[in-house]
Amino acid sequence: MSTQIKIKNDLILKALRSQKTDRVPVWMMRQAGRYLPEYQAIRSTMSFLELCKNPQKAAEVSLQPYEILGVDAIIMFSDILVLLEPMGAGLDFDTGKPRFVNPTRSQEDLNKIIALDKNQLKDKCSYVYETIDEIKAKLNNEIPILGFAGAPWTLASYMIEGGGSKEFAEIKKMMYLNPKGMHELLEKLSISVTNYLINKLDTGVHAVQLFDTWASVLSIEDYQEFALPYQQKIISGIRAVHLDASITLYVNGVSNVIDFMIQSGANCLSIDWRANLKDIREYVSGQNLAIQGNFDPCALLGTKDQVKSKTLRMLEQAGPGPGYIANLGHGILPMVPVENARIFIKTVQSFSNH
Amino acid sequence: MSTQIKIKNDLILKALRSQKTDRVPVWMMRQAGRYLPEYQAIRSTMSFLELCKNPQKAAEVSLQPYEILGVDAIIMFSDILVLLEPMGAGLDFDTGKPRFVNPTRSQEDLNKIIALDKNQLKDKCSYVYETIDEIKAKLNNEIPILGFAGAPWTLASYMIEGGGSKEFAEIKKMMYLNPKGMHELLEKLSISVTNYLINKLDTGVHAVQLFDTWASVLSIEDYQEFALPYQQKIISGIRAVHLDASITLYVNGVSNVIDFMIQSGANCLSIDWRANLKDIREYVSGQNLAIQGNFDPCALLGTKDQVKSKTLRMLEQAGPGPGYIANLGHGILPMVPVENARIFIKTVQSFSNH
Repeated sequence: MSTQIKIKNDLILKALRSQKTDRVPVWMMRQAGRYLPEYQAIRSTMSFLELCKNPQKAAEVSLQPYEILGVDAIIMFSDILVLLEPMGAGLDFDTGKPRFVNPTRSQEDLNKIIALDKNQLKDKCSYVYETIDEIKAKLNNEIPILGFAGAPWTLASYMIEGGGSKEFAEIKKMMYLNPKGMHELLEKLSISVTNYLINKLDTGVHAVQLFDTWASVLSIEDYQEFALPYQQKIISGIRAVHLDASITLYVNGVSNVIDFMIQSGANCLSIDWRANLKDIREYVSGQNLAIQGNFDPCALLGTKDQVKSKTLRMLEQAGPGPGYIANLGHGILPMVPVENARIFIKTVQSFSNH
Repeated sequence: MSTQIKIKNDLILKALRSQKTDRVPVWMMRQAGRYLPEYQAIRSTMSFLELCKNPQKAAEVSLQPYEILGVDAIIMFSDILVLLEPMGAGLDFDTGKPRFVNPTRSQEDLNKIIALDKNQLKDKCSYVYETIDEIKAKLNNEIPILGFAGAPWTLASYMIEGGGSKEFAEIKKMMYLNPKGMHELLEKLSISVTNYLINKLDTGVHAVQLFDTWASVLSIEDYQEFALPYQQKIISGIRAVHLDASITLYVNGVSNVIDFMIQSGANCLSIDWRANLKDIREYVSGQNLAIQGNFDPCALLGTKDQVKSKTLRMLEQAGPGPGYIANLGHGILPMVPVENARIFIKTVQSFSNH
């Protein structure tokens, strides 16, 4: 088990448990991605889904941000949507964006979706677990490896809308007109996600992150009915097996749901750039709840001096207390200059206010 | 001047000033729109922009929600982007979505954009003011007429991104790399919007609404630098001419910026469905600040019973105090059944908790 092997740089694992660290640790959501020429070079030889399913190459791009930028954790290269394929939703990325050719909308569509147990997932998503093995073999316990999954509401939104969305009208229509079917789908997704993440922890990732990115488009009432209970189920389901698992919950747009995020049971909340980091750090102080974030990904498009000063401002707002991980407020964008990403990482790593 | 003529149903005008009303008044953002077959019938004979520029037809569709659903105010049919054409940004709706063929990005592009004074606007947007005249002529002072405009940051986002956006990376890049140019653009937009709305009030609209729909994608710091000052300039600029103008400010995603919205100087804040209506009503109580909103537009896709019960819940949350206008939290969607829109309106109008 991973917990018995000493990780050389375990700053992030300590911060996730709200333990003191000598400096603030840092990584970037979607850090293995298109802004890196080294990633582009590999992607030019295969499609996005092919890369997700190629453990050697997926491990290689997972390690790039560590080799190039020196981040404090590896997040394995993958996509939240690959889990949906073996559940019965036909996914493609042919247009460069995720697309479900036959969106899940009727009761008949819903009936076709199946919950997957641990063994089915090991079989059907074997490439995911092989990627973790590859990363472990190459990384030699230098820094922690993070696994991730989408949360049920966010995964369901892609399945039902047929891809990304702005209004989320189709999934909301289903919530209102077929709440039973909707809850059944979210239940199936919860089971699959729980098993998927347990498998990842079994395979040796040191912590996991649950992305309920778009749950913030829900009203408070709908969030409580359709998002929160499934986040809770997954988190408690994982902890039933991995008792001390570190679990981070991310929502893009936390300001109206921060109280519910606290209720999820996660031990770290990953917050977006619109949130007031200082206020949230104060709000959760004394609760052993770590906070991750919240640099505006678009602010990496500024000048080097701006990136540095904005990063320092974020660190000041986070304050000197334990349980803080520097990160972006959403995934890094393809057009970000690598040098700016490096300044972000290095500014955090050379900062000390402890 | 409109203020000297008695409006038969002036509930909204009273509510905007936080005065007591016998019942809660109601209208719907984008109420003149595609969910109405009567609107579709007219739109099938001309393009969206042609309709905006045809005062007779624009007035006709503006009045439809009153004739069909009995809303408590007319909002004139138009689009926030039509103002940008005479300012020098080439707009088209040929694909069904707004598109600026040559997005405003370089300093040279920025230099081409001109601020418009009242007379230039009367000339170049004459169809807007003629539409108001048409509505007035047909309406016979039965209910108030509302005018609107986009706020500078939101307008700039369309000009710079070239249309709608998800990441808003281009406008943010400009904010960071060319803040001087950005502020100059926002200043030009402020001048034009101020004059545009003053003209509307001169022509006889009874209140105006300023849409800074997408300002909520800004960090708190950026909102304070790039959104709030221009909202304030416009609101104080209008009030310098129309001393007692009723001005509503709308942002889609108010939870992290409600304090700044209060500072805008608006006398009514229009809030989205993610916000906690009860909390916000309590938060602003005693400040003579009206609140408008905040029904999830997607909740109009539910069953009739759900629409009714959710509307009643919204009204309960708004509480019995003065200064509340029922509305959606964003524009009505094209696929909403007319009957559901009617239930929303009628449920509000037959509700009494005063």
